[in-house]
Amino acid sequence: MKKFMEPESVALIGLSRKTGPGSYNIMENMIRFGYKGKIFPVNPNARSILGKKSFSNIKEIQENIDLAVISAPREDTINILNDCAKADIKYVIIVNQGFADADKKGKEIQNTIKEIGTRHGIRILGPNTLGILNNYNNFTTSFMPLTNEKSSVGLICQSGILFVGAEDFSGAIGKGIDLGNGCDIGFFEALKYFQEDPDIKIIAIHMEGLYQGKEFLSLANDVAKKKRIILLKTALTETSIKSAMSHTGNMAGNFQIHEGVMKQAGIVFLEEDGQMKYAVKTLCNMPALKGNNIAVITFSGAAGIMVADALEKYGLKLSTLSHNTINKIAKLSPDWMPLGNPLDIWPAVMKYGAEKVYSIALEAVLSDSQVNGVVCISIAPLLPDFSFLDVSESLNAVMKKQFNKPVAAWLYGPNKDEISKRFESGKKIMTYPTLETAAWSLSILKSNY
Amino acid sequence: MKKFMEPESVALIGLSRKTGPGSYNIMENMIRFGYKGKIFPVNPNARSILGKKSFSNIKEIQENIDLAVISAPREDTINILNDCAKADIKYVIIVNQGFADADKKGKEIQNTIKEIGTRHGIRILGPNTLGILNNYNNFTTSFMPLTNEKSSVGLICQSGILFVGAEDFSGAIGKGIDLGNGCDIGFFEALKYFQEDPDIKIIAIHMEGLYQGKEFLSLANDVAKKKRIILLKTALTETSIKSAMSHTGNMAGNFQIHEGVMKQAGIVFLEEDGQMKYAVKTLCNMPALKGNNIAVITFSGAAGIMVADALEKYGLKLSTLSHNTINKIAKLSPDWMPLGNPLDIWPAVMKYGAEKVYSIALEAVLSDSQVNGVVCISIAPLLPDFSFLDVSESLNAVMKKQFNKPVAAWLYGPNKDEISKRFESGKKIMTYPTLETAAWSLSILKSNY
Repeated sequence: MKKFMEPESVALIGLSRKTGPGSYNIMENMIRFGYKGKIFPVNPNARSILGKKSFSNIKEIQENIDLAVISAPREDTINILNDCAKADIKYVIIVNQGFADADKKGKEIQNTIKEIGTRHGIRILGPNTLGILNNYNNFTTSFMPLTNEKSSVGLICQSGILFVGAEDFSGAIGKGIDLGNGCDIGFFEALKYFQEDPDIKIIAIHMEGLYQGKEFLSLANDVAKKKRIILLKTALTETSIKSAMSHTGNMAGNFQIHEGVMKQAGIVFLEEDGQMKYAVKTLCNMPALKGNNIAVITFSGAAGIMVADALEKYGLKLSTLSHNTINKIAKLSPDWMPLGNPLDIWPAVMKYGAEKVYSIALEAVLSDSQVNGVVCISIAPLLPDFSFLDVSESLNAVMKKQFNKPVAAWLYGPNKDEISKRFESGKKIMTYPTLETAAWSLSILKSNY
Repeated sequence: MKKFMEPESVALIGLSRKTGPGSYNIMENMIRFGYKGKIFPVNPNARSILGKKSFSNIKEIQENIDLAVISAPREDTINILNDCAKADIKYVIIVNQGFADADKKGKEIQNTIKEIGTRHGIRILGPNTLGILNNYNNFTTSFMPLTNEKSSVGLICQSGILFVGAEDFSGAIGKGIDLGNGCDIGFFEALKYFQEDPDIKIIAIHMEGLYQGKEFLSLANDVAKKKRIILLKTALTETSIKSAMSHTGNMAGNFQIHEGVMKQAGIVFLEEDGQMKYAVKTLCNMPALKGNNIAVITFSGAAGIMVADALEKYGLKLSTLSHNTINKIAKLSPDWMPLGNPLDIWPAVMKYGAEKVYSIALEAVLSDSQVNGVVCISIAPLLPDFSFLDVSESLNAVMKKQFNKPVAAWLYGPNKDEISKRFESGKKIMTYPTLETAAWSLSILKSNY
């Protein structure tokens, strides 16, 4: 995989002469992305593309080529691949659609391609793929514009939407491998690569069809001992399995039987398309949850009740709080105030101020040996008029004391984006858009290692 | 309820002399909110508050008072309420906590209050409430700052968080009633008021404990024939039911048995705290879904598969598309492209451009008699460089043709906020943060009327 991820020279075969808006020109995108290696455009109908000399055939290039990226109609692919073999190219990405994802003829071409690869020792990524995204060396083979922002997330997917729509899936991608139809390189090789990559701490996977099933499952259970794996398995129904067949040409079924074992190994299964970014943020920033007992600190009794419902749904429960913990807030509350967990601090806040009371409460529950994790419910008020209700700075100060317990926050009110940023600036407390997500996120921090 | 919602004169009993940040001063908030009626502050220790003459007792005020808002320690409430009776005040809001939500003594005081109310014909909202929010006449009794933005949503809740955190629940509130502990005014009266209020089209309810059960359920089934009702029922587990007892002092249980009947009547049950705003937006802007058959138009095969999974989860299915519909896209696609539902238009888009192909596809599926509703999957690209991928204007033009079928969109990519606004500017296509939410939102548009 290294030559796919960090090539020093790339040939772009079948590169379009068109550049600019709507041209989907790979080289243009690659240069914009900041790739510093050598690029050789190959197009028999062009003399130069974007100021670079264009070759009519790959055999003309008299230099070493680490990787060839083919974006040509499927009819031409077999000849091109044979040319690659003659030019001694060992790594090839096939971008175009129209293979096993399409019709009978496409399947035949894909099979032929695979045979050529096997015969000549050429490793193939695709077809039907955006290929590689490596933000550690500003490299991509995508013809769509991508966000260039580093992270410790390694992404393995079967569709370019996980690259183009990174904001909606994993968030910032450190390194990404789009398997597409996966005629050769598959989940096993990609996972193996990230297993050994020190830059990558979290591995997010989008999977429609599981091929290389046995090898992958065994490896995944092994990797999960060292790195957290997040899995978005799609194509779960009869209809969508059929759609998956014509998306990447892979069978989607027979997965559920492994789910139990994989969950046991600590692999996080996603149930909805919006969860991946919250899983990533949680696993990247928070310590493990070492038990099921959660303390909830809240300005609002109603929100405490909602999160209690959600915690139970995800196998967590409201912790008992020690007398010592309760007393710290009781001293600040009216005599009549019933205190427990959820710990409703609002009457104390009205008297002593939000920053003071919330800090005391957070430190108290984090120091409570019965508590494994915390949900903080707080307000995101308009600034500067109501800055006295913004407890982000005070809570981040408490978190500096290193309790090594996860704290998830949910904010309500008109200034959520800004106050969330303030909460997360300490890189300890993560915020979530709903109480449901906050509860779920804590639940995935339970792990066996 | 009218005197609660549209009082011409309000006495604020026990109003704090403190004003400014952290004072939670109701009158200050009321004036900032733009209330134009008469306000009479009552505080024996002040001569004036915010420039208004302060009365030492409500009996001193020699003018008609539509509504009294009491924010005083619980010990003083009984005397104040007796004073209200003598001053012939018929509508009272009790703001403070510390009643049935607290301890035995609080319960006793609340019972006494209720008796006084019954004896003198005084209707009471609360205790433990922010009271009223009426954006149609800029009136609120909230001591917390609220967003003043009109909508056709009538909100009934048991907690001020639904007011303060409106952005996280119903979105803009037209009129809101916080029942708090609900010692007198309850779900029945509040619902009855919104039933007859022509400003209100959608009724959103946050309910912990259902009191007035029978009357409410019968009324709700009736109201649901004319207006859509959205219900967030919380306190669903043993633990949270206990918490609810000490939040508003009401029993939460015995609800599930009515769920079937209420769903049958078209009432939307929410499963998670983040869903309310999407339910509101959906029901406010989209026509009913007249069958289960959904067409999906997509740039991405993978996203089509995800939404197919989600649709099935919510009782919907992928529609069969007519040959005529398919042919309109087949003409623009490569021969090998397998076309169906989800309708993957990407190869056509690469050749003929997003705006042209997407408009043709949307018009085709909306014209297809087998299709009841549509999910559009599209890109939210950076502008202006990739504006050729922004199809918002083209799709809104198609929607002007009045197909009377709901269209939900999901956008992926780096510019979601901006492009979502453009999609929604036509007030026809609504956008959702996840495919899951888009599918769910269509499902709640099924109705029996």
